[in-house]
Order: sequence, then structure tokens, then C-alpha cells
Amino acid sequence: MAKKRLGRQTVRLEAPPSVAAAACVVGKKEGEGPLRKWFDTISEDSYFGQKSWERAESAMLSHCFSLCCDKAGIVPSQLDYLFAGDLLNQCVGSTFAARNLPVPYWGIYGACSTMAECLALAAMAVDGGYADSACAMTSSHFCSAERQFRLPLEYGGQRTPTAQWTVTGAGAVLVSVEGPGPVLTGATVGTVEDKGITDANNMGAAMAWAAYRTIRANLEDLGRSPEDYDRIVTGDLGSLGSAMVRELFAADGVRLGERYTDCGELIYDPKTQDVHCGGSGAGCSAVVLAARLLPGFAAGQWKRILFCGTGALLSPTTVQQKRSIPAICHGVVIEN
Amino acid sequence: MAKKRLGRQTVRLEAPPSVAAAACVVGKKEGEGPLRKWFDTISEDSYFGQKSWERAESAMLSHCFSLCCDKAGIVPSQLDYLFAGDLLNQCVGSTFAARNLPVPYWGIYGACSTMAECLALAAMAVDGGYADSACAMTSSHFCSAERQFRLPLEYGGQRTPTAQWTVTGAGAVLVSVEGPGPVLTGATVGTVEDKGITDANNMGAAMAWAAYRTIRANLEDLGRSPEDYDRIVTGDLGSLGSAMVRELFAADGVRLGERYTDCGELIYDPKTQDVHCGGSGAGCSAVVLAARLLPGFAAGQWKRILFCGTGALLSPTTVQQKRSIPAICHGVVIEN
Repeated sequence: MAKKRLGRQTVRLEAPPSVAAAACVVGKKEGEGPLRKWFDTISEDSYFGQKSWERAESAMLSHCFSLCCDKAGIVPSQLDYLFAGDLLNQCVGSTFAARNLPVPYWGIYGACSTMAECLALAAMAVDGGYADSACAMTSSHFCSAERQFRLPLEYGGQRTPTAQWTVTGAGAVLVSVEGPGPVLTGATVGTVEDKGITDANNMGAAMAWAAYRTIRANLEDLGRSPEDYDRIVTGDLGSLGSAMVRELFAADGVRLGERYTDCGELIYDPKTQDVHCGGSGAGCSAVVLAARLLPGFAAGQWKRILFCGTGALLSPTTVQQKRSIPAICHGVVIEN
Repeated sequence: MAKKRLGRQTVRLEAPPSVAAAACVVGKKEGEGPLRKWFDTISEDSYFGQKSWERAESAMLSHCFSLCCDKAGIVPSQLDYLFAGDLLNQCVGSTFAARNLPVPYWGIYGACSTMAECLALAAMAVDGGYADSACAMTSSHFCSAERQFRLPLEYGGQRTPTAQWTVTGAGAVLVSVEGPGPVLTGATVGTVEDKGITDANNMGAAMAWAAYRTIRANLEDLGRSPEDYDRIVTGDLGSLGSAMVRELFAADGVRLGERYTDCGELIYDPKTQDVHCGGSGAGCSAVVLAARLLPGFAAGQWKRILFCGTGALLSPTTVQQKRSIPAICHGVVIEN
């Protein structure tokens, strides 16, 4: 077995890269939610000063990247790598944000698992001696996502009870050979799972199995139990999908309890914000990571977490062709 | 600087992974071209036995992956990583091909640079001790690409003189800690370049500058001149884009000469196959690499090449919004 590998899916980072800085930028609705005080920037303008939703998403991501570099005290021309991707067709949210930046760029597609995938690759690039610093970033925008994946907003379509709300938000995390911490000590890379779910308005259910599999693989590969983590956090399963993850573990006799939570459940207030099953989108886990999970280390709220990005790997075309929904989950171990 | 880094964009692989096997599957038109005798499988059926073009693309890629594993004598449950992506929205060509494969999966989006990007990451994963084996794969399909990026085939649209023909083909390269060679000794990761070109039917021009920049970065970072390579091969610039690369180097006083070639120029016969400026698509460089470039090492035709995947990072939406075309190029050094 490769020397940094533990078990089938997990790698151990021997020289764990540190989080040098993280930043997040969100829209108005997210800024009205329970995490409002933790966001770096809340924009009242969902167009972010641009003339299309796609330009808005890129502008939001660009701003987030600049904030992150600024916090880390690093200029783009010193940054070794940028790992980025988003939900838009051909990932144009990210590629247009990265235009003419003097940073070697790796384009990633992991749907809503993108932040975890980028973070794992950035950490491996630094740990492996290929980079001294690398930034992982992603975004989603409610309006660009609705138009592309579902219906134009002007149509005023009804949302089904299992639907989730795509987060308007961008997150960036800059990892480095040195920094204030926390550090990234391992990553569990998911497999593409498909249990035959076909309802594109129930992506939490489609992703739950993938989340369960990756969390299980992480525990098995590292010889850990859930109690070894202060928090196990999935990306955007929402209330239905996260309940399914709890049930899947319960069937194994494992009670996840309070330590398990989901970014899609944390970002909106279910009582006052009408989001049905919770938040979703690549920006969901990215902004919750940057705004809430990483600062929780400095605040002494937790010492070790398993951050699991979850992605539904469908397209509008595959939905129209009535195909089932493949899903994936990648986990990153973050600790003090 | 990070210990495996040379210059701003290049990494040196200290324990260079070997190519354990490569495979390629193409459509009928590609099978009628000058590389016909080098392809593993030529399908007369552009549907590959499926009922949609998207399913056809996934089936072609699945077949290619199986062939590659078979040649390498490795079963998927032994393979440590799969790096894959394609041109379809949300990369569904790859994700549906990877469904339920027992291989940790990294989703990549690099447009037509995908094979080079996947290969660089696979090589770094093996060199870095994170994997003993990793497969890089990608695909494109003329019919799924035309429908998604341009017009339905039934429309019978006219092609402009600068247009290229999307290759129907899938390529896979399996790299490993040991193997018969050649080996991957370095990678130069590109930046996202945008020189303001807006004609989506002239992607060779949009990508040429990115190719020039990455080749230059490779030469500078490694202290090499073009003569240090037996071949410098770009992905899918076609006849116009590759002429532009020659001109850009000529303006620097550097003559690339016969050692420079482009996969988009190699795959079709311009005299007998009506493809205008040549081949394109993520499958173009992937199948030329697997069919022609890698076997050329065993045949003693070259000892060191620079394989440069080139990608135009646009989407139909950005074209409709009249935005310019960002492009990227990643280079991988392959040698005996």
C-alpha cells in the first residue's frame, strides 16, 4: 500500500498543512439566517453589481478569493495553486473568476462536494511538497442554479416539500505549510454511489448513502469511532438526508447523536426562513466551513472534526432522460 | 519554494510514476482517419448500443476504462484513484461511467485539457505516496457535444471555416509506482488566460495563447529549450491555433519546427475528412496520447515529449452573453 494511505479510501497527511485563512461572501437571505454574525460579507444586491446571475456568481467568488488572500497576507502571485469549481455548466463561475489571475489553476467538478474535494487536493499538494500554499474555493448562486437546473425564477414554480434552497455564497480556504491552524491531517475520498433515486427534488436522499459510505470508510480506515470526532459535518443533505444518515448508522448500531450535523441545516432558520429541507449548493458547505466550522477551533468549541462535502452528480439532461442520481462524498479531517 | 517545485508553475516528480497501460475507444469517423491502426476499439455504432448520446459517451468511457485495467492487469478494486471528467454539463459522461465502481473518484473539469490535468494529478498522487496506482480518463462525443454546445444535429447547421470537429473518443491512462514505462517526470500547471477572443467557433485561437504560456513556463521553469523535447504536442488547437503557437514562439525568436505538433491535426486527414480546422474535444488529446504518443516510446520514435492539454473554459451561456473565452493549458513531461 502507498505509504501515506490508510485503508482503501483514506490518506494520512504526514506534514499536515495549516489553514492560513478562510473567507466567505453570501447573499441577503443567508445573511438573515442564524450564521449572520460569522460571514465576512453579506451582499444586499443579489446581482453583486453585475448584469447577469452568472457574472454575479463570478464576482462573488472573486471578492471571496481576494478577501481570503488578504486575510492570509499573501498576494495571488505568491500563491502556488488554486483548486476551484462550481455548479454552473462548464464551471464558468470559477473559470471566469480565475481569468488572468497569476495562479496555476486546477479545475474541479464535485458538484456540492467541491469544497471538500478542493480542500483535500490542496492539502495533498502542500503535504506532498508540490506547493507551499494552495487555495480551495467554490460558489453557488440561488438564481443561476435555479435557472440552470430547474426553472427560470420568473416562472414562479412551486417547490416540493423535499426541495432544498441553493445557497448564494462563496467560500475560500487557503492552506499553507505554516499558519495558525487548525491543520488538515487526512482525507477520505469517496466513490460514486447510485442507489437508484430519481427525484431531482430530493437530492438529500440521493446523497445520504454516499455520505454514510464515506464516513464509514473514514472510521474504518483510521480505526476510529464517531466519538473520536467532536463534530461530523456533512455538506448539504438537509433535514431529510441527514436523518437518513442517522438511520443508516443506527442500523449498524452506531448512534451519531449531537456530534453529527449538516451544513444545510445550519445555514437557514427552518422556523423563519422558508427553505423546506434546508440549504444546498456548492456554496453551502463552503461558507459554513469558512464562517462557522473553522472559527470554532479558535473559539475552543471543537478540537477535531470530519468535514464531509456531499455532491449529487446529475445534470438537467440526465434528469430529463429519467436516469437515477449518482452521488459522492469526500471527507477531510481537520484538527487543532 | 516547495521542495518538488521548479519555478512558478512546474513540479518535478522525484519518484516518477510509470505508465502501466493506456487504452482508447473511438467512433467510426476517427477510425477512418490516419491513426486507425493504433486504436484499441473502433465502434461502427455511434450510439455504442445505447439509446441517447449521453449514455453512448458513458458506455464508451466505461469500455475504455475496462480495457485499460485489463491491459494493466489490475482490477478496479485494486486501483487507488480515478481522476476523470468530460465536457458534458456537470461531467455526467464520467460520473455515470464511474457509478458504483469501487474506486475513490476525483471529479475534474478542464474542458479539453482534462486528460493532461487528470494525468498530472494522478502522477502527483502516485509520486507523493498517496496512491500506488491511479487512472486518468476522459471522453468526448461529437453528437452529445454538438447538441449541448452548438445545435442539434437534425438542424443541419453550417460550420464556419475555423470550426473544429469534436472527436468521438475516450482515453484512459493508468499510472503506477511500477510499470514498463514511459515515466512521468514533471507537470506544468497552467493559469486561466483570456485574451478577449469571443468567437466560439474559433476555439483554437482562444486556446493558442494559453498553450504558448504553458509551454514557455515549462521551458523556463526547467531551463530547457524546445530541442530538449523530441515532441511538443498540444491538445486540440487545430491548424489555425497551432499556427498561432508557432507564430507566438517565432516572435520570441524560437522556431518550434517539426517537433511541434497538435493532436487535433493528427487525428483526421484534412484531405479526405471534412473537418475544417481539425479535431477537438476532451477525447482528442486523450485518444492521440493513448493511441499514438505513448506507443511511440516503445517503438523508439521519441524519448521525451511535452504533452499539453488545451481547454477552452467557456459555456453556451457565456457565449450567449457575448463574453470572451478563457482558456487553459496543462503540460506533462513524459520520457523513457
